[in-house]
Amino acid sequence: MTPEQAGAFLTIDLNKIADNWREIQVRIGDKRQAAAVLKTDAYGLGAEKVGQALYEAGCRVFFTAYVFEAAALREVAPEADIYVLHGLLPHTELDFLRCNLIPVLSTPRQVADWNHLGHKEDIVLPAALHVDTGMTRLGLTARHIEALAKNPEQCKYLDIKLVVSHLACADNPENEKNEDQLKRFEDACAKLRRILPKDFKESLSATDGCRLEDERFYRDIVRPGIALYDNAVSLEAKILQIQEAEAGQTAGYGATHVFSGKSRVATLAIGYGDGFPRSLSNKGYVLIAGHKAPIVGRISMDLTTVDVTDIDVEALRQSPTAEIFGSSLPLKDVASLAGTIDYEVLTNLSGRFYRIYLD
Amino acid sequence: MTPEQAGAFLTIDLNKIADNWREIQVRIGDKRQAAAVLKTDAYGLGAEKVGQALYEAGCRVFFTAYVFEAAALREVAPEADIYVLHGLLPHTELDFLRCNLIPVLSTPRQVADWNHLGHKEDIVLPAALHVDTGMTRLGLTARHIEALAKNPEQCKYLDIKLVVSHLACADNPENEKNEDQLKRFEDACAKLRRILPKDFKESLSATDGCRLEDERFYRDIVRPGIALYDNAVSLEAKILQIQEAEAGQTAGYGATHVFSGKSRVATLAIGYGDGFPRSLSNKGYVLIAGHKAPIVGRISMDLTTVDVTDIDVEALRQSPTAEIFGSSLPLKDVASLAGTIDYEVLTNLSGRFYRIYLD
Repeated sequence: MTPEQAGAFLTIDLNKIADNWREIQVRIGDKRQAAAVLKTDAYGLGAEKVGQALYEAGCRVFFTAYVFEAAALREVAPEADIYVLHGLLPHTELDFLRCNLIPVLSTPRQVADWNHLGHKEDIVLPAALHVDTGMTRLGLTARHIEALAKNPEQCKYLDIKLVVSHLACADNPENEKNEDQLKRFEDACAKLRRILPKDFKESLSATDGCRLEDERFYRDIVRPGIALYDNAVSLEAKILQIQEAEAGQTAGYGATHVFSGKSRVATLAIGYGDGFPRSLSNKGYVLIAGHKAPIVGRISMDLTTVDVTDIDVEALRQSPTAEIFGSSLPLKDVASLAGTIDYEVLTNLSGRFYRIYLD
Repeated sequence: MTPEQAGAFLTIDLNKIADNWREIQVRIGDKRQAAAVLKTDAYGLGAEKVGQALYEAGCRVFFTAYVFEAAALREVAPEADIYVLHGLLPHTELDFLRCNLIPVLSTPRQVADWNHLGHKEDIVLPAALHVDTGMTRLGLTARHIEALAKNPEQCKYLDIKLVVSHLACADNPENEKNEDQLKRFEDACAKLRRILPKDFKESLSATDGCRLEDERFYRDIVRPGIALYDNAVSLEAKILQIQEAEAGQTAGYGATHVFSGKSRVATLAIGYGDGFPRSLSNKGYVLIAGHKAPIVGRISMDLTTVDVTDIDVEALRQSPTAEIFGSSLPLKDVASLAGTIDYEVLTNLSGRFYRIYLD
């Protein structure tokens, strides 16, 4: 795809991403490590490009969801610890070995499988343990840890480097669940320290957790995800056509917008098939030449119509594109208008954009 | 990605897609042609695979949104007419020529640019004209057509093979806008017939239009899109972990689900980062061993938790995956629960699934 052929441009500022990471590293201090969570193709932004930029900035700990994501990342992060949060899916042991990847083991079965491989090969294998402290999602429960304590042989061939958990309500510092999860995490770590032969690092906080002021939540390693992309991403779509509409004329599927008077409409080369949320129909807006242009009618799969009646014709003529989100129109605000969160909008962005990486 | 490494499986039945296409072709009759709309990577299902299956089934007219989509399709559809609905974006003329693709011209500027190339090269270039009959989206307006009629030289180097428009309300046969658009379309075609040297075909209806009983809407070519995928797609996600929850325990971000009693929770390897709509949080359900398992808590980026308390433990043990949508849980119903339409869910599905093509 060439820029001429494309409908929209996604600009990803790798320097800003590296700066965001450095800022977090500085904030948490030298004794701790800022990792980078690059699952879901680095939240849709390209894990290899983002991974390489962060590796060059000094990041040496990465997290992905799947082993295939981790294997791709290994190409650009040769010396880093790469953890796989979904753990050891059945029959993927050799994929981990091949690229020196670390499973975040979250069930007794995963612990047994990984330990079994170590036993069979007579090697000690690196691993992390996931403990569930209140998400009820992934991780060993308090009961699983009790069972492990009774039979520490289950970890004989494992080098547990890290114990991981995840906060449910860290976006709200006042939520008492934070303190409750911290306590459960400390209890689990204390129990594990008594049974494991070597010490391990601890990681409890992702983006929201490392924004908490209370340093107890930082532990040894923080795992920022979306925090890496603050002010680093923008999206523009081409204006394909500008047409006049008469009073009474309607826009889009279902004729949900009726023009109340003579109007001017711009059609943009972006739609919900590109990940621009359909829930913004008749609700969201874009910026053209710095002016708000409200979305009129339903967003189509490949097209969006916006009202540009109030925008100066000359300004319009000089604007080949509209800003979908970016420095003047924060992604967070767009996502909120769409009834969702920036994470969902980012990760649903299409592969159909022309991508511009600034470095 | 191997099946073992993957979190979820998207199964695409190419035979069923070909059958769906054949059924439409039979329904509209021999004198008309059923095309296939394969924009947005064939609604997220893989345009090259789907295109090849339809080409082998006999389809010889395709529509895409962008020229790069059309160029990729040309590889598997060597003898077909491939139309590009977004028309002639500036400086893409040679991309059209190179792969013998046909722009659906929607503005006077596009008509002029394509005609100019014909003039310069002294060849007659194939084209379609898009006329706007009520979407206020893309296409020549009645006024543009008047202007063209006054100066037909503007099309001198164009072989207009097809005139295209698009219905706004064809999902409702009773909506009077259908009849209004039909009339405007017939008027536009009549005007164009008077000025163009050769006759052309007409296309007004996409999926909803070709489901109308009134044959006048079929014209010469119908353009089914989502109709091709009826009962042809299913999605399953792996169960990563099953855990017990106590009364009072909460699930997921924001602790939005509180378990009222001792419960069993399955964690699925799918999340909104895969295109599983976050709006299904605490609202949607999946099927495990044929039983409904309601989504509890917010859907995460890579994970979804479902309540499986009421599902027999043995049945659970024998079910490595959950049905997200498919034969027993129609995509349309899932989309409707999520507050959107099947088109949006399909086109937002992730590239992270392991894809199984049945042929």
